[in-house]
Amino acid sequence: MLASRLYSPTLREIPADAVVVSHQYMLKAGMMRKISNGLYAFLPLAWRSIRKIEDIIREEMAKIGCQEIMMPIVQPAELWQETGRWAVFGPEMFKLKDRHDHEYCLGPTHEELITALTRMDTSSYKQLPVSLFQIQNKYRDEKRPRFGLMRSREFIMKDAYTFDADEEGLDKQYKLMYDAYTRIFTRCGLHFRPVIADTGAIGGSGSHEFEVIADAGEADIVYCTSCDFAANVEAVQPKAVSQHIHNDKEKELVSTPGQHTIEMVCEYLHAPVSQSIKAVVYKLDDKVVLAMVRGDHEVNEVRLQNIYHAVNVGMASDEDLKACGLIAGYISPIGLKTSDKFDIVVDASVMEMEDACCGGNQKDMHYIHVNPKRDFPNVRVDTIRLIDTHDVCPVCGGHIEMKKGIEVGQVFKLGTKYSEALGCNFLDQNGKSHPMVMGCYGIGVTRTVAASIEQNHDEDGIIWPINIAPYEAVIVPFNTKDEEVMKAAKELYEALNTSRDEIVLDDRKGRAGPKFKDADLIGYPVRVTIGKKLKENGTVEIKIRRTGEVIEVPFAEAAEKVNSVLNNLRAENL
Amino acid sequence: MLASRLYSPTLREIPADAVVVSHQYMLKAGMMRKISNGLYAFLPLAWRSIRKIEDIIREEMAKIGCQEIMMPIVQPAELWQETGRWAVFGPEMFKLKDRHDHEYCLGPTHEELITALTRMDTSSYKQLPVSLFQIQNKYRDEKRPRFGLMRSREFIMKDAYTFDADEEGLDKQYKLMYDAYTRIFTRCGLHFRPVIADTGAIGGSGSHEFEVIADAGEADIVYCTSCDFAANVEAVQPKAVSQHIHNDKEKELVSTPGQHTIEMVCEYLHAPVSQSIKAVVYKLDDKVVLAMVRGDHEVNEVRLQNIYHAVNVGMASDEDLKACGLIAGYISPIGLKTSDKFDIVVDASVMEMEDACCGGNQKDMHYIHVNPKRDFPNVRVDTIRLIDTHDVCPVCGGHIEMKKGIEVGQVFKLGTKYSEALGCNFLDQNGKSHPMVMGCYGIGVTRTVAASIEQNHDEDGIIWPINIAPYEAVIVPFNTKDEEVMKAAKELYEALNTSRDEIVLDDRKGRAGPKFKDADLIGYPVRVTIGKKLKENGTVEIKIRRTGEVIEVPFAEAAEKVNSVLNNLRAENL
Repeated sequence: MLASRLYSPTLREIPADAVVVSHQYMLKAGMMRKISNGLYAFLPLAWRSIRKIEDIIREEMAKIGCQEIMMPIVQPAELWQETGRWAVFGPEMFKLKDRHDHEYCLGPTHEELITALTRMDTSSYKQLPVSLFQIQNKYRDEKRPRFGLMRSREFIMKDAYTFDADEEGLDKQYKLMYDAYTRIFTRCGLHFRPVIADTGAIGGSGSHEFEVIADAGEADIVYCTSCDFAANVEAVQPKAVSQHIHNDKEKELVSTPGQHTIEMVCEYLHAPVSQSIKAVVYKLDDKVVLAMVRGDHEVNEVRLQNIYHAVNVGMASDEDLKACGLIAGYISPIGLKTSDKFDIVVDASVMEMEDACCGGNQKDMHYIHVNPKRDFPNVRVDTIRLIDTHDVCPVCGGHIEMKKGIEVGQVFKLGTKYSEALGCNFLDQNGKSHPMVMGCYGIGVTRTVAASIEQNHDEDGIIWPINIAPYEAVIVPFNTKDEEVMKAAKELYEALNTSRDEIVLDDRKGRAGPKFKDADLIGYPVRVTIGKKLKENGTVEIKIRRTGEVIEVPFAEAAEKVNSVLNNLRAENL
Repeated sequence: MLASRLYSPTLREIPADAVVVSHQYMLKAGMMRKISNGLYAFLPLAWRSIRKIEDIIREEMAKIGCQEIMMPIVQPAELWQETGRWAVFGPEMFKLKDRHDHEYCLGPTHEELITALTRMDTSSYKQLPVSLFQIQNKYRDEKRPRFGLMRSREFIMKDAYTFDADEEGLDKQYKLMYDAYTRIFTRCGLHFRPVIADTGAIGGSGSHEFEVIADAGEADIVYCTSCDFAANVEAVQPKAVSQHIHNDKEKELVSTPGQHTIEMVCEYLHAPVSQSIKAVVYKLDDKVVLAMVRGDHEVNEVRLQNIYHAVNVGMASDEDLKACGLIAGYISPIGLKTSDKFDIVVDASVMEMEDACCGGNQKDMHYIHVNPKRDFPNVRVDTIRLIDTHDVCPVCGGHIEMKKGIEVGQVFKLGTKYSEALGCNFLDQNGKSHPMVMGCYGIGVTRTVAASIEQNHDEDGIIWPINIAPYEAVIVPFNTKDEEVMKAAKELYEALNTSRDEIVLDDRKGRAGPKFKDADLIGYPVRVTIGKKLKENGTVEIKIRRTGEVIEVPFAEAAEKVNSVLNNLRAENL
């Protein structure tokens, strides 16, 4: 490809609404453009990367016998009503009507459709397992689309679904997919971790997320440095911690005028935060739930959602507090009565505390010398806090660390939730009918592009892993007016660009400086500069974007050397 | 691929709602399933064909320097309002609102979006031409989705757009695309014709449709057997025909009780139909238009639409007739007055008639001895009839023939309609601003699959052209229980399936009969049968689906022979 023809309009300025690196660089490098909020057009460079990821996915799916299909994006409401998710999805689902007033949605996912499709033609154990996937646009009407491809409203996903006769079959498919996903993200050149994921909201028996490690990630992941435990913090139920404090004193109500945050109260009472009990009030669907955790702990909202089988989770409003007789800043379970509309759940670690302080349920008043086991009678106790770095590995007790991750894939044992709802059954050897046991497996294709950039960049631009780079190398002639230089550049271009269209020749007029800047910004894994040295000593310069390493080679050996550098990068998925 | 694992559930019965062959066979062969009206899921076989067509398109686009991008399917209303097409598209456009009540549509086409995209980054003549394409789902909310993929509501299109500085540049791009389309459909193994297409509705200076010749086609195409003239009949203005009849009598009103069709009137009056004048009343947007053509001619509604620059074309209602004082069955221009809301247009051939009969504008009355030149004063005269087989070639006067065609592609010189509406301008060498000159170029990818089947099938099933066949060959072991046969079948499968996954081994249990039926139905270009003859004389049978030719070869030479047969088919795009 000649750079003079390549449609990759680079920008000098970073657009104001782009706050994460991948968004900034994709706009700057002319890889994509915003069409509307959360809706992007992909220009040739981005599209080449996306298609390379898709092809890696296709190859790995073929290896495990998962066949490619294509389902409609526009899905009839009836199927979603059959599973009850038409109501559940809420405003995140794009809905529309056709000219005959029939209702449809733009598929945010395809469990309903694939299950309806499979039940049409699959009815015997002999036909199982079924393993199908598609790569397609998905739609979520995000409240605040942001971070470019990290959270857009239209995005490309690969979604696969398996149907088996039993859990054992599902386990096999799950393992195949897990291993395929590991190969896919490895080939994409990403530093990632499969982590245990929460299964509560959709309902299922096991799940892993594939998280690309990057500071811009929205997921908190925890892993053990001793064993192979790794999980999304949402999916972990940390052990209750004991503080070995003993208190015989009765609880006592004390005045804490104006001290309405945990920090204020603890300072005022000269108590460590870890000896305080924090109240957080949620609205879970129609129920107000008072969650109590230790002052230095955080509530695991996903866990809370699972405990209460809630669809919607939010903070309680001032009206909610009032209706339940709660006084913000001074809340504790002491003296409160639960009801259909109001519940209290106390974290297990709180129940290990003695001599704690907590709200007095009166303005400007707190209790001290509180022993929850004694003073919080009739409350629900569960593990509702998030694990943190003070905890140990819940598997081996070893040291844990935490990182930010970008979720690029998820494998999920769905079980029979959808096959039961939609009557996707099979007859076993004895002619008995059972619902098929399903698994679903997603990869965010466009998000993988963004995650790759979040993880692989420097202040000059993108650093593409070779296998998903839009082009593998760029040739920059230092001076396009110099005939000898241009002749050499074209010769090298012809030599390298034989079988595969993977090389860019920067034949644009103008100085070399902006071309080097563009080359770094676009992130070609390899840059070949043909300049003064060609005349001085007949050499050209090969620069590896990732390491900055510069190799000088005689022009006659340049093509061979570039190919060997590219082969080395490919061999290491770098 | 092993047939036992291939997800291609064949049906024994043809579903009732499938009336055209492509729809029937695609359902029967397990290639697709209906999800909702006009919405289909593509199963692995269909998807492989579709992807092969896409890859042919990609290769040919790369050859002419057209780069692949991907635009959103969900498009903001604002852009369509800027060009005025938000209102024009009417109920065929799927519209939706997001959670913030902003309006969007599902793209039926992408002129608005590509123009908005190009204006973002292209501003100088130096950047032109720009040539971009995408392959993507498009949406039309058809009133009556029908004929499977021929007229579905969600379909895959390749759409390309070019931007040039002037008409000369556009002409070059158009020629490149025209030639690329010719190569694409040739490689797809289709018998097709590029024909002159109407340009009126969208507004442009030239267009060709690529029509696959097939009886199931909805387009009427006319071509000359002497010169290379070929056109959609809608785009042709046939010469006026003279009848060489002379009439001196004055027109006379005669009673024709109950004779309200042309045929009845002509029989009653003992006049040939070609001496009668037919009235057809249209509603063109808000205007009622009385169109007069010779009794044996048909009105070209597209031409009528162009003459009146109408967006919507339909038949006038009973109320419309009444409002204009028209009496159905007895209408002619004689004595009628036109207005803002009512116009009369008479076909040029009518004006050549003398001694004709036409409506009397009174119930049960007709005029005879009518000379339109004398008796139809103050009417608009234009060529509004369709060409028919009685006509001669409008270019060379030679013999013409007519066929049915399925439109699978169109190339279109758009000009500056969209660039002007959306301000997509460039500065020329002198710093002067001009709107870019655009072309657009579409291929119906899924419709090409259907067209291929409409053109290539027999009573047993599909006959795939090799380059778009889901798989190139199937190996059918006559008896799967016979170890020697199965060993040979597997050996041949391994030998043929080395580098490319293009061979199916029908390893399913059961008799060979249904497998032969499936092989014919699915339409593998080549079938290899390994059966009794292997034991008798060591040979296997290679059958070519298209010709029925059977070749017996010794097993040892089978792989080589199959490959040479496949190579021959590929060489001829058969």
